[in-house]
Amino acid sequence: MHATLREIRKTPEGILTAQKAFEDFLTHHDFRLPREIVYTGCGSSHFLSQPLAMATTRLGGRGFSAPCSELLYSREWYPIGNPELLVAISRSGETTEAIKALDALNVPRFALTAYESGLSRKSDYALIVPAHEESVVMTHSFTAFYFAFLQLLLHSYGRETYDAELVSSLTKEVLGSEEYIREIVNGFDFRNVIFLGSGILYPVALEAMLKMKEMALFWSEAYPTFEVRHGFKSIADDGTLVVLLVDEPFEWHEKLTEEFQGQKARVLTVGRHDAGADYFIEVPELGPPANVVLYLPVIQLLAYYKAVERGLNPDRPRFLSKVVKW
Amino acid sequence: MHATLREIRKTPEGILTAQKAFEDFLTHHDFRLPREIVYTGCGSSHFLSQPLAMATTRLGGRGFSAPCSELLYSREWYPIGNPELLVAISRSGETTEAIKALDALNVPRFALTAYESGLSRKSDYALIVPAHEESVVMTHSFTAFYFAFLQLLLHSYGRETYDAELVSSLTKEVLGSEEYIREIVNGFDFRNVIFLGSGILYPVALEAMLKMKEMALFWSEAYPTFEVRHGFKSIADDGTLVVLLVDEPFEWHEKLTEEFQGQKARVLTVGRHDAGADYFIEVPELGPPANVVLYLPVIQLLAYYKAVERGLNPDRPRFLSKVVKW
Repeated sequence: MHATLREIRKTPEGILTAQKAFEDFLTHHDFRLPREIVYTGCGSSHFLSQPLAMATTRLGGRGFSAPCSELLYSREWYPIGNPELLVAISRSGETTEAIKALDALNVPRFALTAYESGLSRKSDYALIVPAHEESVVMTHSFTAFYFAFLQLLLHSYGRETYDAELVSSLTKEVLGSEEYIREIVNGFDFRNVIFLGSGILYPVALEAMLKMKEMALFWSEAYPTFEVRHGFKSIADDGTLVVLLVDEPFEWHEKLTEEFQGQKARVLTVGRHDAGADYFIEVPELGPPANVVLYLPVIQLLAYYKAVERGLNPDRPRFLSKVVKW
Repeated sequence: MHATLREIRKTPEGILTAQKAFEDFLTHHDFRLPREIVYTGCGSSHFLSQPLAMATTRLGGRGFSAPCSELLYSREWYPIGNPELLVAISRSGETTEAIKALDALNVPRFALTAYESGLSRKSDYALIVPAHEESVVMTHSFTAFYFAFLQLLLHSYGRETYDAELVSSLTKEVLGSEEYIREIVNGFDFRNVIFLGSGILYPVALEAMLKMKEMALFWSEAYPTFEVRHGFKSIADDGTLVVLLVDEPFEWHEKLTEEFQGQKARVLTVGRHDAGADYFIEVPELGPPANVVLYLPVIQLLAYYKAVERGLNPDRPRFLSKVVKW
């Protein structure tokens, strides 16, 4: 079995690993996250920095995220404000730009990583989530990192944290759609795929787009849901799969689905109900911001099976390495 | 001749139209833009809202941008802050979501549009830039809107405005690369294209990506320059054109170019010098934030000629209409 598939299937376990990392952190630190936080990372870690920033904002703080390279070379263009903490994310903790980015702002530094590493040693605080992975692409570690840090945010802001056992079992429920996902991929030889999500599900759409590129070398796109009608939808035709990530669809989601079906594209809705879609994967009720963890295994499996269907080895993506250095 | 080509070639004239609109606005209003501004738009207008927000931040204010639909349905996730003005952008002034978005924040409203319209009538202030277009896709009007509003920003913040005659003549110089752009497109039958830009050139890369999709129905991507190394570059091979938008390349741009060439992709640099690229289009010195207007005609011509080469009519993009309504 591919390491990638094994690691996606480890998501429920990853949630428990994350919970333990969060609790260990509390044991060793008398520390609360501040209100104004800048998050940074590269690639998948950047797409992880976005929902963390959004959750921060939604919970009453002010979260801002930017890729490491933009913080390093172009930060004068971004409304960074007056952050009280910089959170840098890197699975290995050895990504050159993430380590360099720690110096970009003159504020306390926090590392979110899977290892004692260059990143954690250079930071004032480190949340180490040992969701280790053999494969090049991030899968269950992304989910575990998100959950561990979300718990810390909730705790810091005086909110109730989630029941990790419950969340873990819900991810297991979602993983039950694996066979259905494989059938979608085998039954419809789509030529490109468009992921749509709004609010905190937009960065999940971005991560889905990246997974497709990394594993399946495949034409994939991601947009804030209703933005797609403004020009981008021209590329959708009978060779297109549109994946609509939406917690609770409303009337306009159905209209959007019809619009794509009118262009002969097929729509997969991942959410609470199908909204007229060709394919549907139900996501159990959990509510934002934690619900993010229920979408991730679905989009990872989709990329995995597309790669396999194309005869590629998802464990060994072309031109990529596990740790990106200069 | 296609309307689209005629309109791209009208860029120098558009700059003068923009200058006149800016001056007319000053004649009729005793108004200065505030420091904290939220910008919104859909599609190309959203990609125009981004460099305007970035210019605002760079000039000492705080600019934030979001697509209209995200402001309407998911704004609780975004660090909007306490803006003093909402600027909504729509070429026609009749885009449903742009008009609705004016109600999203309870602050004074400013319309940036080409017509007296639903948008301008619902706003407290309107900068009307009559860079009218027949074609579905925005080309020289994007450039003209940007320049007119930039002048208003500079004026409002007590900075020197640009000499419109000079800027106009520089856009004419850039348009001189039209034949070279056609040769690139005809000489290299690329299968996908990746646009890269950092800071204020990142939204230009996004707009380039959208132009390619709208006109040429083509696989196009856009990333903050160095982000591309983190997973996305897996898709680049001997069928890929990488377009590097960069004012003043430095050492790492050369390394990035080599990395892509190592994957057999070809690189086109648009900037001050070639940085080892396969193709090079020189952009005259103007400096940020105005330099944006010199890159736009280049990326528009590239999309135009790709569409023509693919036998498509750039004036009539598939599935798209000039004004997007619900």
